[in-house]
Amino acid sequence: MKYGFGIDLGGTTVKIAYFDETGEMLAKWEIPTVTENGGQRILPDIAASVLGYLAEQGIPRESILGLGIGVPGPVNSRGVVNKCINLGWGVFNIAEELGRLTGFPVKAGNDANVAALGEFWKGGGRGSENMVFVTLGTGVGGGIIVEGRLLHGAHGSGAEIGHLVLNRDETVPCNCGKRGCVEQYCSATGIVRLAKQYLASHDGPSVLRQAENLSCKDIFDGGKAGDGAALAILDRVYEYMGEFLGNVCSTVDPEVVVIGGGVSKAGQVLIDGIEPRFHKYVFHAAGGARFALASLGNDAGAYGAFKLALDDFG
Amino acid sequence: MKYGFGIDLGGTTVKIAYFDETGEMLAKWEIPTVTENGGQRILPDIAASVLGYLAEQGIPRESILGLGIGVPGPVNSRGVVNKCINLGWGVFNIAEELGRLTGFPVKAGNDANVAALGEFWKGGGRGSENMVFVTLGTGVGGGIIVEGRLLHGAHGSGAEIGHLVLNRDETVPCNCGKRGCVEQYCSATGIVRLAKQYLASHDGPSVLRQAENLSCKDIFDGGKAGDGAALAILDRVYEYMGEFLGNVCSTVDPEVVVIGGGVSKAGQVLIDGIEPRFHKYVFHAAGGARFALASLGNDAGAYGAFKLALDDFG
Repeated sequence: MKYGFGIDLGGTTVKIAYFDETGEMLAKWEIPTVTENGGQRILPDIAASVLGYLAEQGIPRESILGLGIGVPGPVNSRGVVNKCINLGWGVFNIAEELGRLTGFPVKAGNDANVAALGEFWKGGGRGSENMVFVTLGTGVGGGIIVEGRLLHGAHGSGAEIGHLVLNRDETVPCNCGKRGCVEQYCSATGIVRLAKQYLASHDGPSVLRQAENLSCKDIFDGGKAGDGAALAILDRVYEYMGEFLGNVCSTVDPEVVVIGGGVSKAGQVLIDGIEPRFHKYVFHAAGGARFALASLGNDAGAYGAFKLALDDFG
Repeated sequence: MKYGFGIDLGGTTVKIAYFDETGEMLAKWEIPTVTENGGQRILPDIAASVLGYLAEQGIPRESILGLGIGVPGPVNSRGVVNKCINLGWGVFNIAEELGRLTGFPVKAGNDANVAALGEFWKGGGRGSENMVFVTLGTGVGGGIIVEGRLLHGAHGSGAEIGHLVLNRDETVPCNCGKRGCVEQYCSATGIVRLAKQYLASHDGPSVLRQAENLSCKDIFDGGKAGDGAALAILDRVYEYMGEFLGNVCSTVDPEVVVIGGGVSKAGQVLIDGIEPRFHKYVFHAAGGARFALASLGNDAGAYGAFKLALDDFG
């Protein structure tokens, strides 16, 4: 039996997990992400933690097949990071660098893409060969699996489906600098924005008017309670989600669309809302895709990172 | 040296080409596609033509690595055809059937996808690893290459990018039954439709008003001659093309977008029109994609079909 590590590098903590080659997670822990001085301590800290664990547990180096790591920024299939703003990183080959520091083979991917691979392997997409993963959180991220392999993209930015254009007439800019992106309507932030616009432009009572700090959860709760304004807002949101996921599926044609992120906590009601709109917009032959909720939560990144390594070195 | 066949199965003719394993096309010919009786003669005719060629040339069976075939309908990566309306075909495994008839291993793909693989290997996408191919003809088709492999899709309908939704408010239906598809604005037919709408809703002189049977070429010629109406129409067309190709590239992140089909005969002016709009809509990190014109013409399908076989059996 061989073993390896899956590492999920975030802006504040690094999650490190130790796996056997069947994908059983045998241990996990976190270390802080030290972003000072251009993030130069990040990789040495990770290497020290990994090597320390092996020494402490008396695990021989020969039993380690390799390391996988998910990074919060664009990474191509050869491991070249193309700037991670919130880590202070520029352009370099993280696979080579972490490989040199640990002596193990390393495979890297973008964090959303790597989380997609985790959900594909052990979560909501289990058993499929082709999958689209979308995280509806503060922003909207994505990952695409084609015949069991992650689509990294030529510039390490495959599956940036939060930045498809949904509304070419939008006047408010997206965080990415463009206008009318999916993220402006389908993220938790975007849904609240749509709700505020709706409430400002409509009269009539709504439970949403009582919320002190209107949240995405308030809107889904309002919908579940039959509030008219909440239902009208969600109708608009589902329409947007159905349209953009229809376009993604007409392009990629997966068996399954897995939905994660904070918004997915709404549960089955979200899928029930999206599916009929999806079928209105998707090319008929690609309409066979089923919808599922993500199931690994915060561990998706570690699972996917280890799977990256397992696919190449296992 | 091994050899093989690339077969491009169309609604009226079957193009068959004989290749060596370096991709040199050594011979090509056509046979008619007999669609009577549910298209039941098509595969036996192909098998007879291939086996006849080998016998006639005295080529030993052992030197043949296999056959690839492009089919005008959805085909998944295992060779299951999911109906080809214009051939009269239902659901069956074409790779197994043609394999049985010839005794050679067979790999099948959708015709637009296979043409994409041909352009990737020997045409406009040569030297890249990740490519988006779009054919702007009577309709709009596409093909996607990810790390050198064709994206077939779970239901054999990967890269149906002619049926992304560009205009959710469209009232006229697309051939596919949906409304507002790319094909309704960016195909040769769609461009003429937009032009007629423009001319009907604007006064003022235009060379386009003199055309007896307005064609897409007339519009590009008008634009090259500086006709105001033609330029306004093309401006709208380029905007649509930039938006949808931006969305495709934000999803797939290729190195190159290759444009083929009748509309691409307009040449470099088409790329010059699309590129600035593309950069307005694509996610910045995926904006490094370059544009190129297809270069294999009608041979793209045969090249790609042989490459399918070469990748799996070579």
